[in-house]
Amino acid sequence: MSSYKKMLVAIDLTEEAPQVLNKAQEISKAHGAELLLVHVVEPVGYAYGGDIPMDLTELQDQLDKAAKEQLAAYGKQYGVTDNNQVITVGRPESEIHRLAKEQDVDLIIVGSHGRKGFQLLLGSTANGVLHGTECDVLAVRIH
Amino acid sequence: MSSYKKMLVAIDLTEEAPQVLNKAQEISKAHGAELLLVHVVEPVGYAYGGDIPMDLTELQDQLDKAAKEQLAAYGKQYGVTDNNQVITVGRPESEIHRLAKEQDVDLIIVGSHGRKGFQLLLGSTANGVLHGTECDVLAVRIH
Repeated sequence: MSSYKKMLVAIDLTEEAPQVLNKAQEISKAHGAELLLVHVVEPVGYAYGGDIPMDLTELQDQLDKAAKEQLAAYGKQYGVTDNNQVITVGRPESEIHRLAKEQDVDLIIVGSHGRKGFQLLLGSTANGVLHGTECDVLAVRIH
Repeated sequence: MSSYKKMLVAIDLTEEAPQVLNKAQEISKAHGAELLLVHVVEPVGYAYGGDIPMDLTELQDQLDKAAKEQLAAYGKQYGVTDNNQVITVGRPESEIHRLAKEQDVDLIIVGSHGRKGFQLLLGSTANGVLHGTECDVLAVRIH
């Protein structure tokens, strides 16, 4: 009997992502579970405030495109089909919760730095992912 | 290939413990991993302060004995040998870290309440377990 049928691995696109992906791949195989590969792009406006009026559309488009390409490359490397690669824009914890719920995910996998606790791109935290989620959460220690 | 060889499941002794134990049992089987069953008894002095001089030895002994019996019952139910049942006294997060390190544990499993984040007996938190640990942490959602 396996506990998990569908896992969501949320990654940033730093050089640390493969550590999380390697673990996610192994674990999903051990459980015979489907793996959903997720990257949340934070709207540029969040990071840059908004006091100075600027058209950030082009920058956002470039970021989205780069993220999509990088995720596709990881998908290929880790055997995740196009259908199971998700790029979404928003607050990481909210988007991860939404996707987990919509897709009936039973395990969320995220990277964690020992000293800083859970860490996703741009400061999302363990508690952000843990709070309000209905499913289990695995924090993969990044070395 | 399996990612985990030795798992530590830390439980309190409330009615919620079986939810965590069921999951820990399934996961350790899926990975063919050894399972270590841990309960940390907090010294009575921590809970009751210490301003009023009292001899708490007898109370502590009673708590330790009750914990040992309950853990043995769980061990029997979940197929964890006596050698892999650990009762220890101290701060939960410190004790869990110490044991995980001493015993070469590669995954710590703890219960988590959705709204409150990770939760162990007497207020130990997700961050407490995550901070300073060298291994992965799985938060099992308690319903």
